[in-house]
Amino acid sequence: MHITPQVKTILNNYETDSAATKINMARILMHGKLSGTGKLVILPVDQGMEHGPARSFAANPDAYDPHYHYKMAIDAGLNAYAAPLGALECGAVSFGNQIPTILKLNNATSLNSVKNQAITGSVQEALRLGCVGVGYTIYPGSDYCYEQMSHLQEIAREAKAAGLVVVTWSYPRGGDFLDKAGETAIDVCAYAAHIAAQMGAHIIKVKPPTDHLCLPLAKKVYQDQHIDISTLAKRTEHVMQASFAGRRLVLFSGGEQTSDQSLLTTIQGLKDGGASGAIIGRNTFQRKREDALLLLNNIIDIFKS
Amino acid sequence: MHITPQVKTILNNYETDSAATKINMARILMHGKLSGTGKLVILPVDQGMEHGPARSFAANPDAYDPHYHYKMAIDAGLNAYAAPLGALECGAVSFGNQIPTILKLNNATSLNSVKNQAITGSVQEALRLGCVGVGYTIYPGSDYCYEQMSHLQEIAREAKAAGLVVVTWSYPRGGDFLDKAGETAIDVCAYAAHIAAQMGAHIIKVKPPTDHLCLPLAKKVYQDQHIDISTLAKRTEHVMQASFAGRRLVLFSGGEQTSDQSLLTTIQGLKDGGASGAIIGRNTFQRKREDALLLLNNIIDIFKS
Amino acid sequence: MHITPQVKTILNNYETDSAATKINMARILMHGKLSGTGKLVILPVDQGMEHGPARSFAANPDAYDPHYHYKMAIDAGLNAYAAPLGALECGAVSFGNQIPTILKLNNATSLNSVKNQAITGSVQEALRLGCVGVGYTIYPGSDYCYEQMSHLQEIAREAKAAGLVVVTWSYPRGGDFLDKAGETAIDVCAYAAHIAAQMGAHIIKVKPPTDHLCLPLAKKVYQDQHIDISTLAKRTEHVMQASFAGRRLVLFSGGEQTSDQSLLTTIQGLKDGGASGAIIGRNTFQRKREDALLLLNNIIDIFKS
Amino acid sequence: MHITPQVKTILNNYETDSAATKINMARILMHGKLSGTGKLVILPVDQGMEHGPARSFAANPDAYDPHYHYKMAIDAGLNAYAAPLGALECGAVSFGNQIPTILKLNNATSLNSVKNQAITGSVQEALRLGCVGVGYTIYPGSDYCYEQMSHLQEIAREAKAAGLVVVTWSYPRGGDFLDKAGETAIDVCAYAAHIAAQMGAHIIKVKPPTDHLCLPLAKKVYQDQHIDISTLAKRTEHVMQASFAGRRLVLFSGGEQTSDQSLLTTIQGLKDGGASGAIIGRNTFQRKREDALLLLNNIIDIFKS
Amino acid sequence: MHITPQVKTILNNYETDSAATKINMARILMHGKLSGTGKLVILPVDQGMEHGPARSFAANPDAYDPHYHYKMAIDAGLNAYAAPLGALECGAVSFGNQIPTILKLNNATSLNSVKNQAITGSVQEALRLGCVGVGYTIYPGSDYCYEQMSHLQEIAREAKAAGLVVVTWSYPRGGDFLDKAGETAIDVCAYAAHIAAQMGAHIIKVKPPTDHLCLPLAKKVYQDQHIDISTLAKRTEHVMQASFAGRRLVLFSGGEQTSDQSLLTTIQGLKDGGASGAIIGRNTFQRKREDALLLLNNIIDIFKS
Repeated sequence: MHITPQVKTILNNYETDSAATKINMARILMHGKLSGTGKLVILPVDQGMEHGPARSFAANPDAYDPHYHYKMAIDAGLNAYAAPLGALECGAVSFGNQIPTILKLNNATSLNSVKNQAITGSVQEALRLGCVGVGYTIYPGSDYCYEQMSHLQEIAREAKAAGLVVVTWSYPRGGDFLDKAGETAIDVCAYAAHIAAQMGAHIIKVKPPTDHLCLPLAKKVYQDQHIDISTLAKRTEHVMQASFAGRRLVLFSGGEQTSDQSLLTTIQGLKDGGASGAIIGRNTFQRKREDALLLLNNIIDIFKS
Repeated sequence: MHITPQVKTILNNYETDSAATKINMARILMHGKLSGTGKLVILPVDQGMEHGPARSFAANPDAYDPHYHYKMAIDAGLNAYAAPLGALECGAVSFGNQIPTILKLNNATSLNSVKNQAITGSVQEALRLGCVGVGYTIYPGSDYCYEQMSHLQEIAREAKAAGLVVVTWSYPRGGDFLDKAGETAIDVCAYAAHIAAQMGAHIIKVKPPTDHLCLPLAKKVYQDQHIDISTLAKRTEHVMQASFAGRRLVLFSGGEQTSDQSLLTTIQGLKDGGASGAIIGRNTFQRKREDALLLLNNIIDIFKS
Repeated sequence: MHITPQVKTILNNYETDSAATKINMARILMHGKLSGTGKLVILPVDQGMEHGPARSFAANPDAYDPHYHYKMAIDAGLNAYAAPLGALECGAVSFGNQIPTILKLNNATSLNSVKNQAITGSVQEALRLGCVGVGYTIYPGSDYCYEQMSHLQEIAREAKAAGLVVVTWSYPRGGDFLDKAGETAIDVCAYAAHIAAQMGAHIIKVKPPTDHLCLPLAKKVYQDQHIDISTLAKRTEHVMQASFAGRRLVLFSGGEQTSDQSLLTTIQGLKDGGASGAIIGRNTFQRKREDALLLLNNIIDIFKS
Repeated sequence: MHITPQVKTILNNYETDSAATKINMARILMHGKLSGTGKLVILPVDQGMEHGPARSFAANPDAYDPHYHYKMAIDAGLNAYAAPLGALECGAVSFGNQIPTILKLNNATSLNSVKNQAITGSVQEALRLGCVGVGYTIYPGSDYCYEQMSHLQEIAREAKAAGLVVVTWSYPRGGDFLDKAGETAIDVCAYAAHIAAQMGAHIIKVKPPTDHLCLPLAKKVYQDQHIDISTLAKRTEHVMQASFAGRRLVLFSGGEQTSDQSLLTTIQGLKDGGASGAIIGRNTFQRKREDALLLLNNIIDIFKS
Repeated sequence: MHITPQVKTILNNYETDSAATKINMARILMHGKLSGTGKLVILPVDQGMEHGPARSFAANPDAYDPHYHYKMAIDAGLNAYAAPLGALECGAVSFGNQIPTILKLNNATSLNSVKNQAITGSVQEALRLGCVGVGYTIYPGSDYCYEQMSHLQEIAREAKAAGLVVVTWSYPRGGDFLDKAGETAIDVCAYAAHIAAQMGAHIIKVKPPTDHLCLPLAKKVYQDQHIDISTLAKRTEHVMQASFAGRRLVLFSGGEQTSDQSLLTTIQGLKDGGASGAIIGRNTFQRKREDALLLLNNIIDIFKS
């Protein structure tokens, strides 16, 4: 596997990781249309679990089949495909050699309002299914957060010892300090990214931050220090800074979008702010395959440019 | 063991499972009157534990004896017999070679209103008793659900490593979103089946769904997308779709029935919707043996046709 | 060790148990005055822990000494002696070869109203002390019940793997469905015995049931099916039926008694209903030694007849 | 090590213990001025942890130094010294061969009103520090009691397997039945000693009981059976009786005292009642060294006489 | 590595520790500008996790980069650098041989008011990253304190077995006895230091105590015994006394300061009271690099003098 200078630079930031983990990281970064650019776009499909199957797939019924998503990630030239256990078990032999995969190890459902997650996979299962990494979600701010972080710590240790890449979804949620607007506030988003970095995540996943400021003590600092959070690009830059001054890969979701144009504008803002890439789920599979391929290509082109 | 093309097709859907698990799966699918059809009917007897012995067996006192159920499952030509530890310990030597058995690993009782379950068996016990698989019940929606799912994840991993089949009873129950009608609503039932599939279950067990819609956000999608839930056949089709587009075996219970005719009508609806089969408990053992054999034969005939 | 046909028949009901467990079972059944009859009387002494030492032993101060109970069980020709760790540690070398012993693994105290138990022993300790079995108490109906059952499951698995006999005290207690009368109601007692059987207990211990019916849904069945619960003999028969149609040994306590005559009448009722035997604690040690020996002899004679 | 007949008699009461545990027991009983008498006085110093350093040591600042207590126990000719991890780590090399030591494995603090304890040591640490035994405190009656007893069970099993002596502090506290007076009531104290004995403790530590009776059902028995609790000697006798009729060593604390004379009167009462010895903490180190040595000598003389 | 008499004296106080732990201790004490003096200054950087990245680093944006802190600790000639997992993973290869590092194993965040911590690292990770020790924070007084202490006990045992140094941050916080002023009261601070010492910490970290007295029973003792707490030097002396009469190393934080002068006055007070050294976090990285180097040099000079 040839490794480009851009990717080499990134791998150097992971100076304490094993050769095995670096190779798995390179497998992601050297795959697909963004191969070697140091940028990456990943397809995550756990919405069936998180929101229910009909809410996720009824708009495009082909997407009920786990094979559909494998093929989509492969044909769109994405860097990796992330999903829960059952979905990967359905296709890991058929497609496992054509796309790097990430096993999501925990998941919530919409059948209850408890702000926690179930453990739905393990490092052992990721190895059995030939994955390059594992994914784990924490809810900074929630009452379960310390428990989730403590569990992530165990998962990450085990994953690194097995040479896997650790991807951390860091989604601020609930607790006694965060209201709905606070969950995507720039101060909270940057904080969430920093927590994931300190937990030892190789790749961090956050939502695009708004220009809202939530925590009173933080708000004062943003204002006193005149931190520029006026554009998505500036906010993205700040999140990258909070992620060890850009030493960690940070991916952003596309967010809930009103139109393709608005999504591409968001992607452009992320790109301009130095984001490492994007994770595009619902915007991929809740439309016709050809439309999805076209949209993903446009997104990739922005990151390539 | 000869394997028919229909069974071969099914086994191919479990592409990441070990040879040992596939052989145990084939043991179920190639057994009894439905051998080789790809359809299956299973006898589950845990009602003594769940509802109490008199409520379960007083109508047909022979059924107090665990041997009675082994013989019933064998003589009726069913595919497998599922029961808790104590019942299988009573007959595993006498009948274990005549019918594939599934050890149920958790159970509730009716002596308390807590919506949780006790662990009543283990993978090790299933191996000791010569079972082909283990069964585990989750209550999606309940406050114990994430804990149950996390435990199922451990059980499933251990069972697969031992070459066993994992059967998951996915019964929505309680919590802050589900009322009584919601527990069998079609959106909730399809969601429950999908959760079991994502958890890595080989065989999923749900209740026949009604045409009720429970979760507001899901309701909107069913209506906007014009998902046909007008007949049991259509609803069954939708549940199969939610189970990885039919890549997973899904069994339905007979439900509480007012008459044999109404039960057989339900079975016909399930068959027409593509159900993999049925689990028939109380309708089997709460009547005379000859009546039960006749009824089961009629059910089998529907799946055979 | 010669084994009588009656005992052979009983052992055959435990068809999945190891030779080691069957031998330990036979050690109990072939010991004492009831040797070989298939009936058994056991002395349990954990009341010092459960009710306090003075309430248990002040009426007969010799009983403060653990050796007293060993000697009593031996001299009365009982089948076994059951006690907590400390008491068995005091005499296991002196008397261990003269009477089979059962280590009780959990116990409550009367210093608090919490309806739970402390773990006070382990399978390893039972092996270290040369016991033939272990005892574990569950409180069906209590809020701790599922936790206790889950723990019993682990204990039973470990005990069976070590060749020990599992004795389960199944005492309905508390929770949101059971009032005081409900704890000894016939429907609840039969249910408790069935739960212990399903948990894999070799020997089940319950209290003599009253003719009260507690759970509304069960009450309806008892009335509709005309289940005869008018005499203790009939109720005992029903409990044996609920214990896998008599495939499991079920012992009954003597209950709180107003006179010896009333106790012997109870024993006769149990005997007539097919009980496997009795567990006689307080009625043994809260009187003079010679009186206790006489009473136990009368009880044994009833079971022998 | 020569063993006197008195000590031999005591060791015989521990008939199921290993040679290693008996040797460690003998190390305690054959050490110091009471060597060979079968009586023992132990210095416990965990008050810095339990009450805070100033409350414990400000009256005699030399006592801030852990070495002070080692030297005191050695020079006073006591049988053993018991303390938490940190204190023993400070002197185990300097003094470990001059006095048997007991590592306390749990402790509370006065910084919170929670009636529980933290785990502050382990059997492994006791072995690393060359201790002859471990100490563990339970609070019979408290809401944490069953949890503490379950943990003690694990500790005791591990300690015995390692040949260590198990010392159990059994301090009734809190819960819904015990008020302040109840915590030292004679019925409760005897009950607490019995619980420790049943848990398998080799040495039991309780507080001197008052003539108060706390639990209604117990009170009735004490009155009906005319149990003499009028003097400390009689009450001590009763506690020894509750501890397996004297088959277990029971130590009493000196209690909070108004004067040395009152303490010595207490000790005399304990001695007359057959107590195995005393544990003297605050009365030792909260005074000048020479005064402490004198007082301890007087206490020892009482036990010797 | 040459060891000075001052350091030798300190190491002798850790008489039960392994050679490996003493070597790691010496690595800290023989490093930097205070090498061999027996005094130490450590840079801790976990504020990004505890307070959020902007609140911590916006005042000096270079500090977003973990390499910045490694270089600062090296160039300022400090004894060690302490940080959470992610930050050390970023630089352990580049800088690990130039400065002893301590891995912080638990951390809180400001996104929730729960007075607990998440486990964010492990002894295994500390070994993987070449650290000389691990850090663990307890909150004496909080409702989670006993749980945290119990966990510290496991961590410390594991760390010592691996030859690492155990640093304990002992920060009184919350619970039902401590108000805000109580958290830094001299009686509470001395108590917190004593708890850490008893838990087996090699190095204790507390905040500079005020002359407030919080706990009523302690207050009485301070007043009755005329303990001098009028100056920071006297209070520091008292904390050292509470830490096993100075047998344990105790570090103090700089506290929140209004000016450099006030910080240096605090340091002088600590020095005069016999403090082992200081931990300087925010005062280091929330200013320009040259200013920080100058300030640290002044602090070091005070400890050197």
